[in-house]
Amino acid sequence: MGTSYVTRDRLGMYAKGKGSGPGPALMGADTLLGNDVFNTDGEHLGDIKEFMIDMASGRLAYAVLSFGGVLGLGEKLFAVPWQALKLDTVNERFTLNVPKAKLKEAPGFDAKHWPSMSDGAWATGVHTFYGTTYRA
Amino acid sequence: MGTSYVTRDRLGMYAKGKGSGPGPALMGADTLLGNDVFNTDGEHLGDIKEFMIDMASGRLAYAVLSFGGVLGLGEKLFAVPWQALKLDTVNERFTLNVPKAKLKEAPGFDAKHWPSMSDGAWATGVHTFYGTTYRA
Repeated sequence: MGTSYVTRDRLGMYAKGKGSGPGPALMGADTLLGNDVFNTDGEHLGDIKEFMIDMASGRLAYAVLSFGGVLGLGEKLFAVPWQALKLDTVNERFTLNVPKAKLKEAPGFDAKHWPSMSDGAWATGVHTFYGTTYRA
Repeated sequence: MGTSYVTRDRLGMYAKGKGSGPGPALMGADTLLGNDVFNTDGEHLGDIKEFMIDMASGRLAYAVLSFGGVLGLGEKLFAVPWQALKLDTVNERFTLNVPKAKLKEAPGFDAKHWPSMSDGAWATGVHTFYGTTYRA
């Protein structure tokens, strides 16, 4: 298991507790790096390695995940559309509603060969897999 | 001076160069942490400490900056609306179009007392200072 945003609160933004300061409406990107990702069956899928920012719109387009513990997917990285992830503030982790077995077919890549993420065909493939909508 | 995203490319996403892979259309949030921020006069203002994600929309609401080298503003942190920052991919740094002297009046906070960033009055004050539009 990895870490949660509370353990990575380097700047002390969550220290005052819920209701004041950042979180859960606004969260620090750096504090969410390394955060665990589970599915709705409570299975640990992996953790967050990076967030990809669409610079023109300022939207988080993808989280880059490792599914290290899942079915021998340890070497690869996976871009998961932001909309497919939900923050579970009770368990301090992300939820990704994909069965573990289905992840074997997830579109992944080698860290040495990052996909061209602004390519429409690549993006459409990723969004189709996770059931999210791609907006160019 | 701090670092640029190229020196923080831990996962190798920019290694293939421009045109393929991420950047400059899609950039890694973690790679942009610590990045230098200059104004349009070429003055070094500070660096990026964190990005605040609006979790509901997936938008980057603010970058949290330190203006350490500016007019004794070393202790404080400053939330700067994402729209006020522009990535300069030639110099590998952000541009923030604020004169150095004006930063003395920027709304800042102590890291031990983070503002309630979903508060409309606080957000309006910050956006007014940087000349950006606040959308609740």
